[in-house]
Amino acid sequence: MTLINENYLKLKAGYLFPEIARRVNSYIDSNPGTEIIKLGIGDVTEPLTPAVVTAFHEGVREMGEPKTFRGYGPGQGYDFLKKLIAEYDFKKRGVDIRPGEIYVSDGAKCDTGNMQEIFAVNNKIAIGDPVYPVYLDTNVMAGRSGVCQENGTYENIIYMPCTENNNFIPELPQQPADIIYLCFPNNPTGSVASRQALKEWVDYARQQRAVILFDAAYEAFITDKEIPHSIYEVEGAKECAVEFRSLSKTAGFTGTRLAYTVVPDKVKAYDTAGKEHSLAGLWQRRQNTKFNGVSYPVQKAAAACFSDQGQKEITERLQYYLTNAALIKEELTKAGHKVYGGINAPYLWMKTPDGQSSWQFFDTLLHQVGVVGTPGAGFGCSGEGYFRFSAFGSREKIQEAMERITAAGI
Amino acid sequence: MTLINENYLKLKAGYLFPEIARRVNSYIDSNPGTEIIKLGIGDVTEPLTPAVVTAFHEGVREMGEPKTFRGYGPGQGYDFLKKLIAEYDFKKRGVDIRPGEIYVSDGAKCDTGNMQEIFAVNNKIAIGDPVYPVYLDTNVMAGRSGVCQENGTYENIIYMPCTENNNFIPELPQQPADIIYLCFPNNPTGSVASRQALKEWVDYARQQRAVILFDAAYEAFITDKEIPHSIYEVEGAKECAVEFRSLSKTAGFTGTRLAYTVVPDKVKAYDTAGKEHSLAGLWQRRQNTKFNGVSYPVQKAAAACFSDQGQKEITERLQYYLTNAALIKEELTKAGHKVYGGINAPYLWMKTPDGQSSWQFFDTLLHQVGVVGTPGAGFGCSGEGYFRFSAFGSREKIQEAMERITAAGI
Repeated sequence: MTLINENYLKLKAGYLFPEIARRVNSYIDSNPGTEIIKLGIGDVTEPLTPAVVTAFHEGVREMGEPKTFRGYGPGQGYDFLKKLIAEYDFKKRGVDIRPGEIYVSDGAKCDTGNMQEIFAVNNKIAIGDPVYPVYLDTNVMAGRSGVCQENGTYENIIYMPCTENNNFIPELPQQPADIIYLCFPNNPTGSVASRQALKEWVDYARQQRAVILFDAAYEAFITDKEIPHSIYEVEGAKECAVEFRSLSKTAGFTGTRLAYTVVPDKVKAYDTAGKEHSLAGLWQRRQNTKFNGVSYPVQKAAAACFSDQGQKEITERLQYYLTNAALIKEELTKAGHKVYGGINAPYLWMKTPDGQSSWQFFDTLLHQVGVVGTPGAGFGCSGEGYFRFSAFGSREKIQEAMERITAAGI
Repeated sequence: MTLINENYLKLKAGYLFPEIARRVNSYIDSNPGTEIIKLGIGDVTEPLTPAVVTAFHEGVREMGEPKTFRGYGPGQGYDFLKKLIAEYDFKKRGVDIRPGEIYVSDGAKCDTGNMQEIFAVNNKIAIGDPVYPVYLDTNVMAGRSGVCQENGTYENIIYMPCTENNNFIPELPQQPADIIYLCFPNNPTGSVASRQALKEWVDYARQQRAVILFDAAYEAFITDKEIPHSIYEVEGAKECAVEFRSLSKTAGFTGTRLAYTVVPDKVKAYDTAGKEHSLAGLWQRRQNTKFNGVSYPVQKAAAACFSDQGQKEITERLQYYLTNAALIKEELTKAGHKVYGGINAPYLWMKTPDGQSSWQFFDTLLHQVGVVGTPGAGFGCSGEGYFRFSAFGSREKIQEAMERITAAGI
């Protein structure tokens, strides 16, 4: 008799975004003709840039001709791409990462979800609260949590509250953590960590022999020159941290699919006998066995992002979204709301008015003005009482959403 | 202190193909100028067909324009593609599979590797021997095996020998199995299963309440009209089987990346209290949490395979490889070797001459004639004494490889 992985039964019903989609579809079914404005899921809306499209076509053309056709590529990504990443994303910021420490994949969701597989089930996990649900759910599925308690938290997980009190930067946990998920610029709060804040975490991890899984999917939105884009800008991080990067938000690749993960050679973990093992070796083995590389034309397209022309085009797109963010922040603030984030990040984190719960406010917005955002509670207990707006979308739609909200006196 | 997943330490050193690459590179380093002919890794060599290339370009073009740009797609694949798959791969063969039962992904390696996650660790796994290493290794990594024993088999795994005696079709296991991996046309032996053979397996699985994970990545190579392409051509299979399909070998997508998995609604597994759970629900949850869909232009390209023109072009490519297979079979047989497979499959399974071990024969071929194949032992104990040739490659190269082998009296 085939037995299921019962850890799945611990999961709260429905991953956040499918639940949002369900409520929206149900509203549309009952209110046909309503024009919904979606500021919910963080999905880009601007097309791929010209340099990327040209390279993408070139990759496709190569696949159609006998002399340039490519079958299986290197499972961890082509060197031409990894060299450009090392150059543009790291060397230009004074960080030395070898192309061989870069693992190209089809998404940061996959990588942040899969990385936990190479660790023992009995490691203690620490996550921010609120948090991108993938970090938590994948650990629940793997059996690193107990059951979900009445307050919505799982037993055996260390939650690090990120609130107005700590400026949405988690404090070092009271009990020892083995694997720590950090995400800056943060999804969902839009907060960023200073070099000093990251330094404290790196020092903690090295002292505890813990590993930091650092999600930098939104680094391209950083405008403040003092804020590190990579955790490797902090001394010692190459001994304790894995970093996740993605072209999804940076270059509009949510539908094109390319991300990468940095596993520096020096990051170690231990077996129960206390023997050191290279994390990179384990990750390579995982990827070699369960992954077959990213589509070649997509890698060609990605490589075009790491060129001077590509960077110029991408920066324009990012500026567009950041201007959207500034607009949302201004309008909501004018309407009397308290709004965080949205300066070095595409997300804005608003306190819900009148003590409304975040799902109540979701329904209010949806039903009163046809605007969709993301309820903070969907990201964890400490997200209750907050609401996430995403700055992705067309200027016109965002302006209209803000007008609707203001006009309705919300 | 971060602990590693110690199951990884049980794995035998090196996944098969990296080990082959290592030996080949080391040979090339010592013998510069030698022209190596690779009939080892099963990788296609013919370019994408014109209909596919046209659709691929069209997808890229759409991604570059504001009105047709697409961000995140449905995580399980676009409906336009799933409808075509249901029509061309199933309905045309008299099988009724709903588009909603089809889960599009970036590779059958990922899917066959990831599927085990939704099952409990204490299920008993049955695999063919020899076998595609991914089925075994991913279960070892997940902790479903004991240690690797001296003879190369893992404790607690049911190995089903596939030998000349049973015509390379595994017999029902003596002890109860919960999850059974079957692959037809088989990699590595090139054998196919009759409807009757599959029926026995389906009956067994239903009676045991076991699940069959059926890898049909090579179904497009079937030439014999009596051989089922899908396990769902067998009555009852929709209640107990998951099927993996891939465009990698079918349409030359090894470097383009698209596959799909069928999880029929009726397939169930159980919790320890004996309660039924839908496998599809668990798989959806897994995919929603850890995967973000396949690149849109790749899905467009894939859809072009499921058109009358696409099918015509693909069939020509397949015929090319099958003619290669026939040529290898003929030449090796003439040279006095016993060769299986290669009729309904792109793989040929040759008995090594003079009692050579399969790695000995690998080195013989590499060193004497510069031809690379795959040692049978790399696929499991029962693969010892056999050698796999792949029919992928250009006609000229394959002819030359056969001439070299014949001339050297191998």
